[in-house]
Amino acid sequence: MVHADSSRFAAGMSTKEVYAQVLEQARTLFDGQRNWVCNFSNTAALLWHAYHSLPAPSNAVNWSGFYFTNPSNPRQLILGPFQGQVACQSIAYGRGVCGKAADTKVTQLVEDVEKFPGHIACDGASKSEIVVPIVKDGKVVAIIDIDCAELNGFTSEDQAALEELAQLLAESCDF
Amino acid sequence: MVHADSSRFAAGMSTKEVYAQVLEQARTLFDGQRNWVCNFSNTAALLWHAYHSLPAPSNAVNWSGFYFTNPSNPRQLILGPFQGQVACQSIAYGRGVCGKAADTKVTQLVEDVEKFPGHIACDGASKSEIVVPIVKDGKVVAIIDIDCAELNGFTSEDQAALEELAQLLAESCDF
Repeated sequence: MVHADSSRFAAGMSTKEVYAQVLEQARTLFDGQRNWVCNFSNTAALLWHAYHSLPAPSNAVNWSGFYFTNPSNPRQLILGPFQGQVACQSIAYGRGVCGKAADTKVTQLVEDVEKFPGHIACDGASKSEIVVPIVKDGKVVAIIDIDCAELNGFTSEDQAALEELAQLLAESCDF
Repeated sequence: MVHADSSRFAAGMSTKEVYAQVLEQARTLFDGQRNWVCNFSNTAALLWHAYHSLPAPSNAVNWSGFYFTNPSNPRQLILGPFQGQVACQSIAYGRGVCGKAADTKVTQLVEDVEKFPGHIACDGASKSEIVVPIVKDGKVVAIIDIDCAELNGFTSEDQAALEELAQLLAESCDF
C-alpha cells in the first residue's frame, strides 16, 4: 500500500468506522517516526479526508489542523500543519475557541461559533468548531482544531475520538 | 479581509497573476511571523488553492507542500506541512525527485515521474512533479514539492515562480 492510500476512505462507512481507520492509520504512520511536524502533517490529511468521506454535516468540514504552543512564549499558540484555507498565524491563550481550550485544557465543542464569546473568525464560512487540547507532561503542547461550514458540525462521538487521537499524538511525538 | 481570503483566487486569472497573488499574500502573512512551521503551513494552502483556480493541468495538482532537512540528520528529509493525501514520512538525500533536489541544490522539473530513476511513489496517482530546494546560508533547509496527476504538469514559468517563493521562504523564516 502506498502512503496516500492511508487517507483514502471507502464510501458508506459510519463515523465510528472512519475514526477507527484514522486512529489505526495514525498508529502505523507514527511507528518509527516521532517528529511532531511530520506526524501532525499526516494527521491533518487523515482527518480532512475522513470527514469528506462522511455525509453532512461532516463533509462540510472546511479546516482540519493544529496550533502548537510557542516554545518561546508559553501563552501563545502558533499555526501548525493543516488542510483548508489560510489561517491566523498566532492566537493568545484565552482568546477564542482555540485559546480557551489551550488555557483550560478542556475540549471546546461549539455548536455555533457566532455565540462563542470572543470568537476569532479566520474564515467567515466556519459555523461550528471543535478544539481538543493535546496535553503532555501536564502542559498543553498543541491543540487539534476542526471547523465546519454547517452549524452543529460535531457531536460527543467526534469529541471522544479526537480526545483519543490527542492522547496518541501526545504519546507518539517529541515536541 | 479575513485570513482565509488570502487563499481564495478569482476564476479566470492567468498563471502569472495567480503566482503574483501567492507571492504577495505570502509576504503579507510572513510579516511579523518568522516561525517556519507556521509559514510553510500557510504557503502550502496558498499553493494548493492557487493551482486549483487554474485550468488543466494545474488544477490536477494532487499534493503541495514541503519536506525539511532533519536537524539531527543532515542527509535526511522529513515530511513537513502539506495539502493533499498522506505522504512518506522521510526521504534520504539523493533518493527520488525530492532527494535529488536536496542533494544537488538544483530544481527538479519532472515531466513524467515514471521515467525518473529511483522515483518514490507516495501516491500512484502522481504523474509529474516539481521540487525546488530552499537554501539558507548555503544549506538546503527544506524543499518545496508539488505533484500533479497529469503528465507535464509544470513549466519553466512554474519553476521561476517557485524559485522566487523558495528564496522568500529562506529569507522570511527561522529554521
